[in-house]
Amino acid sequence: MEGWTVTVDRRITKKEKPNTEQLEFGRIFTDHMFIMDYMEPLGWHDARIVPYQQLTIDPSAMTFHYGQSVFEGMKAYHTDEGEIQLFRPEKNLERLNHSNDRLCIPQIDEEFVLNAIKQLVYLDKDWIPKADGTSLYIRPFIISTEPFIGVAPSHQYKLIVILSPVGSYYKEGINPVKIAVENHYVRAVKGGTGEAKTGGNYAASLKAQEKCTQNGFSQVLWLDGVEKKYIEEVGSMNVFFKINGEVVTPALNGSILEGITRNSVIQLLNHWNIPVTERKVSMEELYEAYVDGKLEEAFGSGTAAVLSPIGQLSWGDKDLFINNGKTGEVSKALYDTLTGIQYGRKTDPFNWVEKVKEVSAIKN
Amino acid sequence: MEGWTVTVDRRITKKEKPNTEQLEFGRIFTDHMFIMDYMEPLGWHDARIVPYQQLTIDPSAMTFHYGQSVFEGMKAYHTDEGEIQLFRPEKNLERLNHSNDRLCIPQIDEEFVLNAIKQLVYLDKDWIPKADGTSLYIRPFIISTEPFIGVAPSHQYKLIVILSPVGSYYKEGINPVKIAVENHYVRAVKGGTGEAKTGGNYAASLKAQEKCTQNGFSQVLWLDGVEKKYIEEVGSMNVFFKINGEVVTPALNGSILEGITRNSVIQLLNHWNIPVTERKVSMEELYEAYVDGKLEEAFGSGTAAVLSPIGQLSWGDKDLFINNGKTGEVSKALYDTLTGIQYGRKTDPFNWVEKVKEVSAIKN
Ligand SMILES: Cc1ncc(COP(=O)(O)O)c(C=O)c1O
Ligand SMILES: Cc1ncc(COP(=O)(O)O)c(C=O)c1O
Repeated sequence: MEGWTVTVDRRITKKEKPNTEQLEFGRIFTDHMFIMDYMEPLGWHDARIVPYQQLTIDPSAMTFHYGQSVFEGMKAYHTDEGEIQLFRPEKNLERLNHSNDRLCIPQIDEEFVLNAIKQLVYLDKDWIPKADGTSLYIRPFIISTEPFIGVAPSHQYKLIVILSPVGSYYKEGINPVKIAVENHYVRAVKGGTGEAKTGGNYAASLKAQEKCTQNGFSQVLWLDGVEKKYIEEVGSMNVFFKINGEVVTPALNGSILEGITRNSVIQLLNHWNIPVTERKVSMEELYEAYVDGKLEEAFGSGTAAVLSPIGQLSWGDKDLFINNGKTGEVSKALYDTLTGIQYGRKTDPFNWVEKVKEVSAIKN
Repeated sequence: MEGWTVTVDRRITKKEKPNTEQLEFGRIFTDHMFIMDYMEPLGWHDARIVPYQQLTIDPSAMTFHYGQSVFEGMKAYHTDEGEIQLFRPEKNLERLNHSNDRLCIPQIDEEFVLNAIKQLVYLDKDWIPKADGTSLYIRPFIISTEPFIGVAPSHQYKLIVILSPVGSYYKEGINPVKIAVENHYVRAVKGGTGEAKTGGNYAASLKAQEKCTQNGFSQVLWLDGVEKKYIEEVGSMNVFFKINGEVVTPALNGSILEGITRNSVIQLLNHWNIPVTERKVSMEELYEAYVDGKLEEAFGSGTAAVLSPIGQLSWGDKDLFINNGKTGEVSKALYDTLTGIQYGRKTDPFNWVEKVKEVSAIKN
C-alpha cells in the first residue's frame, strides 16, 4: 500500500461532547470514522476518514448471515502533559491479521491502518476525555459485504474504525469481583475460532453471561471445551492466579485469545523477577491450592479494565474466597504500573507507548 | 401478536426477472422483503413488507461486532398445477426460536411470522421459477441493531425475510461428491452454538472448506470437537450412512444442527420399514464397515441439495469409495420421494406440505 493516502472529509458541524462524569462504555461515538473497502482485484482501497455516519448495506450482505467478521479493541490516553498515547497498538493490528487469517478475510497492511487510526484519533483528539481513568476506545472491525447468501468467504469487505470516549472502569477504585465457573456452556474449543477476535465467540458467550448475572456474579470463568477441566479465560479477559508465590496463567492452546494485556503482564512479572508460568491450570488444582491456603491472588487482564481482581470464585457448590476479597499486592502493582505507563505517569521500559502527533495526520 | 397486520408497500417498477437457466444460488433477490423491528418495551413491532432495499445501520450496531444473529433457510416450490408449496415451514420457525433462545434473542410469534412469509411469497410469486428442480429460497434472519459496543444481549433487533430464486442444485442429475474428513478444524462443540443456526458456526467452517476445496474435495466431514472421533455433519448438511442394511445418522448431541430434511428422512425410512438409528458413529466404525464391505451408502441431507450422495470419503491417508461412486438405492428413493412431495408430484402422507394461497395475503 505504498504511497497510499487517506482522504479526509471533515464534519462541518461538530457533535456535542458528552459530560466526562457520565461516560458509559461504548454508547457515544466521535465526529469521524475511518473506512476502507476491499474488492477483487483492487484489494483494499479507497481509504477515507469521513463524518461518523450510518452504513448502507444490502440485506443479503454476508456479514448478516455467516458471521464472517473480526474486530479489535484498543485505547488512546491523554497524558497530564497533554500528549496522546497508544499502548502497543501494533500488537492489535498484528492480532487483527491473525484473526483475518482464521476467518478467511484478506490481510491488511498493518502499518498503513495503524497510521490511519492515528490520523483519525488526532483529528478527533478533543474527544479524548481527560479525567482520571478515562480514555478513547478505538474499535477497528472488518465486515463481509458481498451481497451473496452462499456459505463461502466473501469477495467484498469493509474495514471501519470508530472511536468512543469511555469513562473510568473503576468508578470507586479497583474492586474485586465475584466470578462463577461455567460448567455447561463453552466459549471456544481447539480447532474452533477462540484464538481469533471474531463475533461468534462473543455471541456464544451471551447465554452463560446472562445466567451468571442472574445469579449475582459479574463474569464467567470459562473452562476448556474438551474436558471442561482446564481454565481458559474470565469473561472477555485472560486470567492469572498467584499460587504459592508463583503466578500462573493458562498457556495459549488454540482456544484462548492472546491478550495484549496478558503479554504485558507476563513481561512485567519477568522484569520484576516474580516467577510466572504459562501452563495448563485445572479447577481441581486451583481448588486444592485454595484449600491448602496457597491461592494468594487471582485477576483477569484486558484492555477495558486493564486488571480486574477476582475476590470470589464459585465452582458448583464450592466457593473460593481469594485474599479476603481484597486486591492483592501483585495485582495492585501490575494495575498501577500498566495504567502508569498508559497515562505517561511512569517510565516505559519496554517502549510500549506510541505517541499520536500531528505529523501522522494528513493536513488538508 | 393477535390482531397484528403486515403493512404492504408495493414496489411500483418491478425488477427484471432472471433467466431460469442461468440461476445461481443466492445472488438475485425479489421485488420485496419483510421487516419487523424489536425494541423494548414495544417488543416485536412494525411488521411490514417493503420493496427490497438497502439497510441503513449504525456502524456500532452490535451485529457487526458480536455476532448475535440467527437465520433460517427454506424454499417455496411451484407445482405442475401452478400451486405454491412450502415444505414443513413451521419447523423452520420453531428452529428459529430455538436458535433465538441460545443467542439471547427475544422469541418471535412463529405463526405470525410464517403468515408474513406466506404473504411475501405470494406477493412475489412470479419470481418462483418453474423449471425442474428450481425453487424460491426463503431466508429469514435476525440481526442485533442496538448501537452499543458492549458485550451483552442487544435491546434492539430486526427480523428480515428476503427471497432468492434458485436454480436446480443438480444441473446434470444427482451426482455423488468427494468429501474430506476434517481432522484439525472444528465446526462446533457441545456447550457451544452448534445446535443453533447462527453466523459464527458458518464463519468457523470457512477455513476448513477453503482447505478441502483446494485439495479437490467438495465438502468437509466434521468430527466432534471433543474427541475428534465421532461424525457430526457434512458441510452444511446432516449425514447418513447405510451400513449392512441399516441406516445410521449421528444422534443430536448438542453440537449438531437438527435438520428438517434429516427429520424427514428418518420419518420416511420408518414409514418404509427400513431400519434407521440415531446414535454415535465413529470414523473408526465407518472405516471398519467399509473394509468389511458393509458400508453401502452415504449421503448428506439439507434444504439446498435435499440429498447429496457421498461417493468418496477421504480420511487421512485412507480413502473410502462408496457404492462405486454411484447414487445408492435408498438415497435415490429418498431424493425422489422428498422432491416428489415438495413439487406436489407425489402424495404427502405426513402432511408436510403447506400451500401458499391468496387468502393468506393482505389485499391492499
Ligand atoms: C475473549 C477475550 N480474551 C481476552 C481479552 C484481552 O485481550 P487484550 O488484553 O488484548 O485486551 C479480550 C479482549 O479484550 C477478549 O475479548
Ligand atoms: C450446519 C447445518 N446442518 C444441517 C443443515 C440441514 O438442515 P435442513 O435440513 O433443515 O436444511 C443445515 C441447513 O441447511 C445446516 O446449516
